[in-house]
Amino acid sequence: MSDTVGSRDAGILLERTRSAVDPQLRSTIDTLPGTIRRVALYHFGWEQADGTPAGSAGKAIRPALVLAACRALGGDPQQAVRAAAAVELAHNFTLLHDDVIDEDPTRRHRPTAWAVFGIPDAIIAGDAMLALALRLFAEDPHPASVTASERLAASVIELCAGQQADCALEERAPHEVTLEECLAMATAKTGSLLGCACALGALYAGAGEEAAAALDAFGREAGLAFQLIDDLIGIWGDPMRTGKPAGADLAAHKKSLPVVAALASGTAAGAELAQLYRGPMNAAAVRRAADAVDAAGGRDWAQLQAAERMSRAIDELSRAVPDLTAAGDLLALAEFVTRRTR
Amino acid sequence: MSDTVGSRDAGILLERTRSAVDPQLRSTIDTLPGTIRRVALYHFGWEQADGTPAGSAGKAIRPALVLAACRALGGDPQQAVRAAAAVELAHNFTLLHDDVIDEDPTRRHRPTAWAVFGIPDAIIAGDAMLALALRLFAEDPHPASVTASERLAASVIELCAGQQADCALEERAPHEVTLEECLAMATAKTGSLLGCACALGALYAGAGEEAAAALDAFGREAGLAFQLIDDLIGIWGDPMRTGKPAGADLAAHKKSLPVVAALASGTAAGAELAQLYRGPMNAAAVRRAADAVDAAGGRDWAQLQAAERMSRAIDELSRAVPDLTAAGDLLALAEFVTRRTR
Repeated sequence: MSDTVGSRDAGILLERTRSAVDPQLRSTIDTLPGTIRRVALYHFGWEQADGTPAGSAGKAIRPALVLAACRALGGDPQQAVRAAAAVELAHNFTLLHDDVIDEDPTRRHRPTAWAVFGIPDAIIAGDAMLALALRLFAEDPHPASVTASERLAASVIELCAGQQADCALEERAPHEVTLEECLAMATAKTGSLLGCACALGALYAGAGEEAAAALDAFGREAGLAFQLIDDLIGIWGDPMRTGKPAGADLAAHKKSLPVVAALASGTAAGAELAQLYRGPMNAAAVRRAADAVDAAGGRDWAQLQAAERMSRAIDELSRAVPDLTAAGDLLALAEFVTRRTR
Repeated sequence: MSDTVGSRDAGILLERTRSAVDPQLRSTIDTLPGTIRRVALYHFGWEQADGTPAGSAGKAIRPALVLAACRALGGDPQQAVRAAAAVELAHNFTLLHDDVIDEDPTRRHRPTAWAVFGIPDAIIAGDAMLALALRLFAEDPHPASVTASERLAASVIELCAGQQADCALEERAPHEVTLEECLAMATAKTGSLLGCACALGALYAGAGEEAAAALDAFGREAGLAFQLIDDLIGIWGDPMRTGKPAGADLAAHKKSLPVVAALASGTAAGAELAQLYRGPMNAAAVRRAADAVDAAGGRDWAQLQAAERMSRAIDELSRAVPDLTAAGDLLALAEFVTRRTR
């Protein structure tokens, strides 16, 4: 599968997912009371802050994974639309709270919900969206809904632990943070819900616990590959995208995976990076830090790890789907999130 | 049923509830990861901030309502222990987040969780506790667990709306707040989860939707009676208790139900109260404000409303439990929360 085909497929898949899941998501959010609904509609991008209609919601990667996993396991994705909406609600609950916790002023090129509606309303809207996600399963007559609800709740708890670990790691000095801790944090914060999305798709196809576990592992490994690539983009930028500028994570002293790998390398470049991270970061320091991560082996390590994680992801997938041609959509999505070619 | 008997019964009931539900609650919380578990154990009062063991958790009113409602409908309360723990988790999730939102420094005579662990950890621990509450139902083989999960999720969403309305009402000028808005807010913020607790008890006794709805209405009405009494205590204090001092709510310019009733009375005393609420509140102003609420009829109104709500609560209860002798525990608990005689 070439990059071009993969990314084009993924683009179509994401569009199709939006068409299939958005009506369910929208009607579910419309059941929220008053101001909470307004905050949710703003956060999802469906409304401006003043309540007038706006463009659209996010990329719907997680709902697309639910539907693609369902299809890969021989199920009817139409049956999994409610589960896909629930996962997207849970994902967006975490974004709302993360933005409050990290005091991030913007998301998807707009002011964050807390910046517009205040911290209390953003916290409360997130709470309601989490309850709504789990309520969707309780209302879903599909035989997989109870197991799915249990998995989503467990994934949210793991995600909370990941977010907590992220905050704690940011408080510590760079040399006190181990690579193992960072990998565990990224698995919990990013891999957990991606894995859950894939597992839910499998369950809604009628698959058993073993297949669900394999799909969960696939999503987790692909999620970690995604995080590694995202961290590389946070240092060297992405020529194909207009999003994050090169050096953004270094300027913010972020302990991303390539940075921590470099710091732990025991090399002279690693020591230089540690020295740079102790001071303020101007443009020249950011350039020197990027070079130091590279020279210390952090860039190569992250690229190798990402490739290895994708390879493990595919191994896991083939445990549940021996003929991978049935899993074309899942592979296209995994490639999309890790290569970020569009 | 005399006050003395009712309150003594309620004391025994709450102790019995703690014995029955605490092991489940504790073992459930023990499944939470690392720091989140520590925040939860501190919040529940089981641990000090440094992790050493501490006294005990709260009063367990809501779990007691679950078990008492189950018993009143002829069920085995032992079957409803998991549901009781779930309701208590959901209640404490709201307390954790409310304390962050209201910036309250103390709860149950101890520093609040956010004051000890920081706002991020308190938000995250609350999130995890909500997910854990709904996870308990997904893991519960009891036939009522799915309907119960749906009810709890709906109740949490209503509760969120109540908390949001509370924040919004506090922002507005006193004369812009109507009594209807305040009653609706109190119903959502306080009545919703108390009603849900009673409904869950009914469902776990095998009762149908109609009986569950009657028990829900019982809990809601009793909850509103409780809120009215609590508001009276916030103005005139409670001679039987050492908690809230007299005048506390007035000093904080709180738009409690008796205050809003007085402001909306169209009386000279109401106008005087509005005038007092525009300025800072010293001890003399608090005394004058309390007298003004009384003279404007706010005190009588609240007492009458509380009695009327309790009477409605009992009417609702008797729809599902025609012979009220079977509902002795529920009535004792309702009396306990509204009379607060111990």
